[in-house]
Amino acid sequence: MNIPQTSFPRVVIIGGGFAGLAAARALENQELQVVLIDKHNYHTFQPLLYQVATGGLEPDSIAFPLRKRFNDIENFYFRLAKVTNINAERNIVETTIGNLEYDELIIATGSTTNFFGNTNIQKYAMEMKSVPQALNIRSLVLENFEDALLVTDLEERLALMNFVIVGGGPTGVELAGALAEMKKAILPKDYPDLDIRQMKINLIQSSGELLKGMSEASSRKSEEFLRKLGVDIWKDLRVVDYDGETVRTDGEDHFKAQTVIWAAGVKGDAVKGLNQGCVIERANRFKVDEYNKVVGYDNIYAIGDVACMQTKDYERGHPMMAQPAIQQGRLLGKNILAKLKGKKLKPFKYKDKGAMATIGRNKAVVDLPKWKFQGVFAWFVWMFVHLFSLIGFRNKVIVFMNWVYNYIRFDRETRLIIRPYKKKNKYSFKEQENGNY
Amino acid sequence: MNIPQTSFPRVVIIGGGFAGLAAARALENQELQVVLIDKHNYHTFQPLLYQVATGGLEPDSIAFPLRKRFNDIENFYFRLAKVTNINAERNIVETTIGNLEYDELIIATGSTTNFFGNTNIQKYAMEMKSVPQALNIRSLVLENFEDALLVTDLEERLALMNFVIVGGGPTGVELAGALAEMKKAILPKDYPDLDIRQMKINLIQSSGELLKGMSEASSRKSEEFLRKLGVDIWKDLRVVDYDGETVRTDGEDHFKAQTVIWAAGVKGDAVKGLNQGCVIERANRFKVDEYNKVVGYDNIYAIGDVACMQTKDYERGHPMMAQPAIQQGRLLGKNILAKLKGKKLKPFKYKDKGAMATIGRNKAVVDLPKWKFQGVFAWFVWMFVHLFSLIGFRNKVIVFMNWVYNYIRFDRETRLIIRPYKKKNKYSFKEQENGNY
Repeated sequence: MNIPQTSFPRVVIIGGGFAGLAAARALENQELQVVLIDKHNYHTFQPLLYQVATGGLEPDSIAFPLRKRFNDIENFYFRLAKVTNINAERNIVETTIGNLEYDELIIATGSTTNFFGNTNIQKYAMEMKSVPQALNIRSLVLENFEDALLVTDLEERLALMNFVIVGGGPTGVELAGALAEMKKAILPKDYPDLDIRQMKINLIQSSGELLKGMSEASSRKSEEFLRKLGVDIWKDLRVVDYDGETVRTDGEDHFKAQTVIWAAGVKGDAVKGLNQGCVIERANRFKVDEYNKVVGYDNIYAIGDVACMQTKDYERGHPMMAQPAIQQGRLLGKNILAKLKGKKLKPFKYKDKGAMATIGRNKAVVDLPKWKFQGVFAWFVWMFVHLFSLIGFRNKVIVFMNWVYNYIRFDRETRLIIRPYKKKNKYSFKEQENGNY
Repeated sequence: MNIPQTSFPRVVIIGGGFAGLAAARALENQELQVVLIDKHNYHTFQPLLYQVATGGLEPDSIAFPLRKRFNDIENFYFRLAKVTNINAERNIVETTIGNLEYDELIIATGSTTNFFGNTNIQKYAMEMKSVPQALNIRSLVLENFEDALLVTDLEERLALMNFVIVGGGPTGVELAGALAEMKKAILPKDYPDLDIRQMKINLIQSSGELLKGMSEASSRKSEEFLRKLGVDIWKDLRVVDYDGETVRTDGEDHFKAQTVIWAAGVKGDAVKGLNQGCVIERANRFKVDEYNKVVGYDNIYAIGDVACMQTKDYERGHPMMAQPAIQQGRLLGKNILAKLKGKKLKPFKYKDKGAMATIGRNKAVVDLPKWKFQGVFAWFVWMFVHLFSLIGFRNKVIVFMNWVYNYIRFDRETRLIIRPYKKKNKYSFKEQENGNY
């Protein structure tokens, strides 16, 4: 992998998400060598992926080049690669570009979509954990509208204009809201020859409430907001299959839909090679102690979504979102420095800063530890927090300009099919020679 | 194609580039039906593609959704499709989504890269006529740097850091300049473990001067600017082959390079079906009369790059750039209205507004009809003209903000490999499972 061997200990970090970046930041300019490995050359600001998927933001404004983040850092190395295995006995990370020895290893590989083993759904439904996936959704939504213009059979047209979002967590709620706003303000103008009332947005939640981890007020209010925007909410309904045409549920309602977005679960993206005993099977996350050390290992740590620290307050681990990842990364960095200096380590204690979700224009819900509020002010808070958290000054400016523009003009201008999504069903009218586009 | 038959005559326009848009604009809200067909759902502002390819601009800021352009226009229809054939006898356009009858047909399909029949070069070299192609270049340039880090053989590393741009027209010159600025300000910081002096940018021009269509002063000055930026300029040298490893020329110099960008020629993208007699074979453009009517047809017109109007001043047709396209489109729209009202048509007369090219920061060359100038002021004029010509207020703002940021910070932040380019040679270290990204 062509990384020089120095007298400094080498810390290898796998993954440049919130957790990995926070850890790397804490290890900057110390007497050690840091190697960050990621399969992308950029950090993805996942909370805004849904706006890329619905044409509100350009993908480049929520991605930040990882190399730039560490431009002036000594003894820092970035490598674009996929980790294939960990050989803990020999302290080696195996990747698509070769092997690398480590002294300390930080696994921050995040999470992937959890289809709970349903290969049909995995094949036909869309997921949204990365920028290219969000762009695929953007393309598919627009392609389905283009196709809806062409079919003469009513049932077929309805299926092309029927959107099913599975999962009533923040991703599902935000996506449903954004689609509903497209239906209201943009699609009737873009497709005057379609009857946009025929477009349906279905949000299916297996339990009895939306935004399950949030307060009851937020859950109720988000439902009210979504209903006002015209979203059909289905609660206590579980999707069991999708064959590319019909979404089957465990209830009486089934849905003929050409766009199904699966936001019903995530699981850790645990790398291979460690003892099976330290992986929690269903969640695919690494069991870690209060110092984020993977159980059974002395110099391997896991942080963020891929780590599961079972505590009294969080019996099934911390929520898989940005805050625990950032806090764990930051502390682990400090603890590794302490360990190397022979100092005492500090156990992790999660500081819950709250949660929030946006439903649409002037509509958001915010749960702070001591204060819960919904509506216009919550929406401004949501925007401020997200702008502030985005990495990079340019990204902040571009996102802000887009939001101002979208707000004033009731618009979302990046509704572009730049790389057509290759449909897997009969509705693909167009020959899709990617090479030519 | 599901477009209603009305009592109004139907004008079909193929292509939403500069020419097609100008024609559609001129035909707005008249007593006719206009159908615009394009294989993309957006207009591409081609003059700035090179900035997308070099990480200076996000692709979404130079693309504009075609449907939005015509949101409030009566009797206007857009269809996303590729035209496969024209049946002039039956007045029918055949497309990937079905057939459509026309009363008047406007062909504005623009141009494609001309490899002059060299299939090797076509296979291994990059082209830059569309947004996805520009993104492919962006990915490849960055991937080659990532790979250069990994190889230990010096010759291999030099090949990965060797850039060959074939063609010294505006595209080649602007691309070479932008790459040279990346070499200067960005790559040394992003790749501190590479010796960036090993990076070479070669601009190969078959004739004795750059920017051939422009003034002698612009040609000379652009060469001076490029040399100052460290670009190696090769004149009177013709590239004859490229096998993915070595660029062969008709001279004594050959180039081992992993990135070859072919900007040495374009040809019309003439649609099939019309008499061979009306197509100029080498240029693949339609012969048109002074009213842009394709010779031999009464209701078929060609405008822009795909049209070749041979006049005394322009024996081989007008230059294949935005201005003739816009002027022809605008006039043709008016002439079609005149024809339908039985009025007299106006012959086309090209009003040459000049040409310009930018080489880099504070460095551009501008030829106005009565005034030629180069340097800082030319650079501001270039920026102003391009900002002004961009379609869409949001795009103007985003491009402007990016330029300000890039100028102040000496930066280009969209250096993201969002969709890896699938290399066709041995240097692809990474397994590229697109689905996973």
